[in-house]
Amino acid sequence: MAQAPLYIDNLQYANWSPDLFDEMAQAHLAAVHVTICYHENFRQTVENMISWNRYIEAHPNRLMFGRTGDDVRAAHASGRTAIFYGFQNCAPMEDDIGLIEILHQLGGRFMQLTYNNQSLLATGCYEAEDSGLTRFGRQAIKEMNRVGLVIDMSHSAERSSLEAIEASERPISITHANPDWWHPARRNKSHALIEALTQSGGMIGFSLYPHHLKDGSDCTLESFCQMIADAAERYGVSALGIGSDLCQNQPDSVVEWMRNGRWSRETDFGEGSAANPGFPDQPAWFQGIRDFPNLAKGLRDIGFAQEEVDAIMGGNWLGFYDRNFGGQS
Amino acid sequence: MAQAPLYIDNLQYANWSPDLFDEMAQAHLAAVHVTICYHENFRQTVENMISWNRYIEAHPNRLMFGRTGDDVRAAHASGRTAIFYGFQNCAPMEDDIGLIEILHQLGGRFMQLTYNNQSLLATGCYEAEDSGLTRFGRQAIKEMNRVGLVIDMSHSAERSSLEAIEASERPISITHANPDWWHPARRNKSHALIEALTQSGGMIGFSLYPHHLKDGSDCTLESFCQMIADAAERYGVSALGIGSDLCQNQPDSVVEWMRNGRWSRETDFGEGSAANPGFPDQPAWFQGIRDFPNLAKGLRDIGFAQEEVDAIMGGNWLGFYDRNFGGQS
Repeated sequence: MAQAPLYIDNLQYANWSPDLFDEMAQAHLAAVHVTICYHENFRQTVENMISWNRYIEAHPNRLMFGRTGDDVRAAHASGRTAIFYGFQNCAPMEDDIGLIEILHQLGGRFMQLTYNNQSLLATGCYEAEDSGLTRFGRQAIKEMNRVGLVIDMSHSAERSSLEAIEASERPISITHANPDWWHPARRNKSHALIEALTQSGGMIGFSLYPHHLKDGSDCTLESFCQMIADAAERYGVSALGIGSDLCQNQPDSVVEWMRNGRWSRETDFGEGSAANPGFPDQPAWFQGIRDFPNLAKGLRDIGFAQEEVDAIMGGNWLGFYDRNFGGQS
Repeated sequence: MAQAPLYIDNLQYANWSPDLFDEMAQAHLAAVHVTICYHENFRQTVENMISWNRYIEAHPNRLMFGRTGDDVRAAHASGRTAIFYGFQNCAPMEDDIGLIEILHQLGGRFMQLTYNNQSLLATGCYEAEDSGLTRFGRQAIKEMNRVGLVIDMSHSAERSSLEAIEASERPISITHANPDWWHPARRNKSHALIEALTQSGGMIGFSLYPHHLKDGSDCTLESFCQMIADAAERYGVSALGIGSDLCQNQPDSVVEWMRNGRWSRETDFGEGSAANPGFPDQPAWFQGIRDFPNLAKGLRDIGFAQEEVDAIMGGNWLGFYDRNFGGQS
C-alpha cells in the first residue's frame, strides 16, 4: 500500500469544530498552522490558546500539538494533524519584547509583524506610507530569531518586508499571499519581494482567498496551478508551499472584526467593499479543507513531477519547520 | 492684601509625596498636569490613577481633582492644587479607540500620540523616519477631539506633529519642549512647527529639563527668559506656558524605564549617554517645584509686563483648559 501523502496548510482560520478535524485527516493534512489571534492582546491570546489546547486534548485521535518538524512526521505516521499556533499581528506581544519568548514557549511559531495597519514594529500594507522597520521592530526581529518565532510579512507593506528580510538573520515567511504579477492586489507581493524572500531561504505559501486570486471566486484551478508553475520557474520549487487562508464556516462578522479590530469607528472594508463586505465565495475546486487534494491533482496536471507536488504540498514547509522553529544555534 | 498668583505647571512627573504637595501650594501652583503613565497599558494606567485618587483623597487641604478650568479657579481660591491627569504615550488606549472616552471619563486631559518611538498612531522623535499619522492615528484624533482629550506632541517627530495639527479640528499642545532655535536638541521643536501649532490655537509649555536647555544644567535664568521673550515676539504671548518636565526626587532607574520601557533588550540612553545615563542636574535657579516663582521673577526682569507674566505662568494654560477639556460642541 502506498504511503498516504503528507500535506501542510500553512495558514487557516476556520470556525473550528470536530467535523473540520475529520476533514483535515481525510485531506491528508499532517500539519495546519492555525491563526490564534488577529487583534487580541497577550491575555486574550492566551485564552485563545487555552481553547485550542482543549480541542487538542478532546480529539487525541485527530489532533496533536505541533512544535517541531518531527511532530508533523509523528502526526503523519498516526493519521493525525499537528496543530501549529501563529499570530497574524504582533498584538499578543503588546509592547513587551519579553513576551516573544513566552509566546514561543506557549507554542507560537509564526508571527506577523503587522496586520494591514502600522504596528509598533513595521508598516502594514494598507497604510499610505511605509517607513520600514521601527526601532522596536529591529529589536523584535533579533529576539524572534533567537527563540525561533518565524517572521511572517503576509499583511505587511513592501519596504517593511524587504527590510525584515535584510534585518533577519534567519529566513522569514510570507505564509499566505500570491504574486502580484499574476493578480494585482494590495495583499499580493511583487516579484522583487518574492525574489528577495526566496533567495534568503524564505518561503511563500500560496493563498486560496478569492481576493488574492485572478478572477476572484471564478479563478480556475488551472490558472492557480499555472501561477505556481511560473513561480517555480522564477524562484525554484523549494521555496513554495500552500497557506490557504481558509476561513471555513466563519460568519461575516469575523471578516469585519479582522478588518476593524478595535481601532476603527468607521467601517473599513479591506479587500472587500461596502457593496461586498462579507467573505467572498471560495472557488468551486477549493470550497474548503476537504478539497486540499485537488491542489495536488492540479499541480500534477500542470506538469509538476510527483516529488515536486509533494514538496509544494507539504515537504517544503516541513523542511522549513525543521530549520526555523528551534532556538538560534 | 494682593491676591496670590495663579501658576500652572503643565507637565510634571515627580516622585510624589506630601512634602511635594506642600511645595506646590507654597509655589502658588493652582494646577499641575501630572504624568500618569509612560509605557503602562490600560489596566496599569488605571492602577496609577487609583494611586493618585488616593493621594487626592488623603490630602484634601492640599489637592483636588482637576477636570475643568473652573477647578483651577476653585483650587486657587482655596490655596490648593488641582491635579490634571495626562499620558505621555498612547499606550493606555492600547489598540482600542473606545478607551479614549474611558480615559477622559477617568480624568485624562492630555495624551501624547507617541513617546520617542513609533506608536500605533504616529512617529516619535527618535525614529529614523517619520511617516506621519497612521490610519488609526487619524481616527484617534477625531475621537480625542470629540471627547476633549488634548493631543500632545512633545515627544513626536516633526511631520507627525504637523499632520496632527492639520488633522485635528481642535488646538493641540506641546506640553514640554523648547524651540530648537534656542537650543538644538532632538526633543526641541522647529520654528515652523511652533508657528503652525500656535497659529492654530495650540500652546507650547517651556521645559526646564536640562537636556532641553541651552548650556544644560548651566543654563541661566536670563537665557531661559530671553528665549521666552523671543518666542513671544515670534508667536505671541498668549500661546506660551510652562511645562517644567520636573521629575523631582525620582531615582535614575525611572529615566531608564522612561527610555526603555519593555521594548528594548539593549539600553537606550535617549537624551543621555552611556557616560551620563541618569537624570541631569537641574539648574541652580530651578531645583524643583519650590522654585516656580523664580520663573515669574525672571520674566519680569527680562521686561515682561505683569499681566504677561501672569499669562505665561498660568493664565494661558487656564484659558486653554477652558476651551479644550470639554466635549466637542
